[in-house]
Amino acid sequence: MTPVFFDHNSTTALKTEVLEAMLPHMVEQHGNATSRHSYGRTARAAVEHAREQVANAVGAYANQVVFTASGTEANNFAVHGICSNLAPKQILTSAVEHPCVSRPALTLQAHGWQAKSIQVDKDCKIDMQHLQHLLQTPTGLVSVMLANNETGVIQDIAAINQLARQHNAYVHTDAVQALGKIPVDFFSLGVHAMTVSSHKIGGPLGAGALVLDKRVDIQPLLYGGGQERGLRSGTENVPAIVGFGAACDLAIKNLSTFAQHTQHLRDALEVGLRKMNAALFGSGPGFSGESRRIPNTSFFAFPNIEGETLVTALDKRGFAVASGSACSSDSSEPSHVLLAMGVDEELARGAIRVSFGASNTMEQVQHFLVVLENELKRLRNLTAVAA
Amino acid sequence: MTPVFFDHNSTTALKTEVLEAMLPHMVEQHGNATSRHSYGRTARAAVEHAREQVANAVGAYANQVVFTASGTEANNFAVHGICSNLAPKQILTSAVEHPCVSRPALTLQAHGWQAKSIQVDKDCKIDMQHLQHLLQTPTGLVSVMLANNETGVIQDIAAINQLARQHNAYVHTDAVQALGKIPVDFFSLGVHAMTVSSHKIGGPLGAGALVLDKRVDIQPLLYGGGQERGLRSGTENVPAIVGFGAACDLAIKNLSTFAQHTQHLRDALEVGLRKMNAALFGSGPGFSGESRRIPNTSFFAFPNIEGETLVTALDKRGFAVASGSACSSDSSEPSHVLLAMGVDEELARGAIRVSFGASNTMEQVQHFLVVLENELKRLRNLTAVAA
Repeated sequence: MTPVFFDHNSTTALKTEVLEAMLPHMVEQHGNATSRHSYGRTARAAVEHAREQVANAVGAYANQVVFTASGTEANNFAVHGICSNLAPKQILTSAVEHPCVSRPALTLQAHGWQAKSIQVDKDCKIDMQHLQHLLQTPTGLVSVMLANNETGVIQDIAAINQLARQHNAYVHTDAVQALGKIPVDFFSLGVHAMTVSSHKIGGPLGAGALVLDKRVDIQPLLYGGGQERGLRSGTENVPAIVGFGAACDLAIKNLSTFAQHTQHLRDALEVGLRKMNAALFGSGPGFSGESRRIPNTSFFAFPNIEGETLVTALDKRGFAVASGSACSSDSSEPSHVLLAMGVDEELARGAIRVSFGASNTMEQVQHFLVVLENELKRLRNLTAVAA
Repeated sequence: MTPVFFDHNSTTALKTEVLEAMLPHMVEQHGNATSRHSYGRTARAAVEHAREQVANAVGAYANQVVFTASGTEANNFAVHGICSNLAPKQILTSAVEHPCVSRPALTLQAHGWQAKSIQVDKDCKIDMQHLQHLLQTPTGLVSVMLANNETGVIQDIAAINQLARQHNAYVHTDAVQALGKIPVDFFSLGVHAMTVSSHKIGGPLGAGALVLDKRVDIQPLLYGGGQERGLRSGTENVPAIVGFGAACDLAIKNLSTFAQHTQHLRDALEVGLRKMNAALFGSGPGFSGESRRIPNTSFFAFPNIEGETLVTALDKRGFAVASGSACSSDSSEPSHVLLAMGVDEELARGAIRVSFGASNTMEQVQHFLVVLENELKRLRNLTAVAA
């Protein structure tokens, strides 16, 4: 039996239309996009078409899109590439960033930089006063994610950008979890650089992009053949890039349907979770009247229940959920996001993330709530017996 | 009409068996290999199986294989990752390296390193005396490719490794063009690190690997979720890694057939080319009785004929060949490989590379020779008229 997949923030299944777009470029049209013969020209045209699709999905121009192999690579590229061209000063990343932003920032300390963390409030929202305070020290780069991968909380990047620019800092945002779930517009956000990724939106693994303000001077992370206008060397992964482009088109076309559908499921889930006395993380009110979270994500915990134990139990009962960020869940540490929000360490260890996709149904949610309630009872009985 | 593909050193079509191995991991088994639920465990098992396949193909242990998204990334990772852990000294790369080795080496100069080039002889072979001379200066890393992408010339890496180790230098080899064409054995070569890539051997784009001596202390290039034992962060590209593993199995199984078949085609091609008075590059005698070039590659030129013009003319007549290294052929500069071999700049501009694959036939080669002779006549007539 294949479990119901409730872990779409971790990765998504390739959409049928995306696979169909990719397949010709995997077999008969398999050229290297740098080659001058007809195979190469076909490959080049496909890459440039996909670049338009990605740019269109994020409100940017095609020549602002630099393809990478992943969101992780794009984030490392942004942090190192922008800072390497500046005299060492301060780099600020939020306390709830993905490690593929915060860890590259830490490595800059070996080159004279100071990496500092911007605090968030109990609802996962950036503490603007803390940011303002930190910006009193000369700052090279501020990097804050648009939507958090664990809580789904959306940050007010436009306001953060405005504040950072007043202090002459560059601004980068990791929009990997926002794309396809809420409107993402590079120009409205106003940032210098933005990361997006393919496999979170029904596209293939192997493609991501850094969208760049053309006035930003950035150093490559990967040197070599000089692809991507010298900014990112390596043979273009044509099928993955083509798939990313196709997935962007679909994500934009289906954005409101996706948002309504998954929010409907999430609301029903959370009604049930509240009845079971779950702690819901990041579900507080939003900024400026806008929705506070991406619509598909719910992050919660039950006191005295280990998240990992519950993930394993739910998996056996047919539901694939996450115990935290899948990208770093190799470790058994409680979520750094929850700790930054001031959640008690014990409760944080119990965290479970459900992230819906378009294919999930209300029946699955209702069934999940029944299974969850039973598993909680069973686990509490086990604990009671053990005690 | 689809042109005959004679450009397999640039990239290869995905093998049917490889695509079949990948497809389940692109659709129904689409888990993130770091997830703890059953989708994740299936993905993890697939990645670890592929790691065994890659290790087996290169005579290493599975735990020595660090997956990357490409050969370019693996080469950048090797150069920066090894040198970042050493006090700045000298880094030596051959004058015929791919730019994804030589350019990262140059960037180390900003961190106090000295990047120097090891000369090659007229047949593209490393000048061992020059290497010995350079090694009198304290050296951190020596990087020489196992087989050159343009000439196909194979270097005596075991001897280079021995010499470099006598001077306490680390040794890296880029084996991207060697894998699947000649036997590649990590332990016999004796190096500290070796790069391989998937899309040159009938595997997908999006997967490469750095094979590491476990005693080598190396810093990551990509930081984040801590995948690949902390050495290379980023969600594992499961389908690409699975495809790379499957392609490795096939490459090893078919190695001698591939070598015999493509050498047969190359020999026939070069008999024809010699009759047309082509200059054949790197076709001199080998070292220690072994074959001097990978079997599928021929690199040649005709005096007073532009390589790019000939590539375009041949493409129109149904043959896809390269005018140099596709990976960097965006530029119109003559091949740095040929210049390093002392080839006259004018002749170097005429260079054409034919690189065969398993699907090419003797009929194609014979037809190509006829077409080539006609095109040469036509182009010479045009030149004569213009003059």
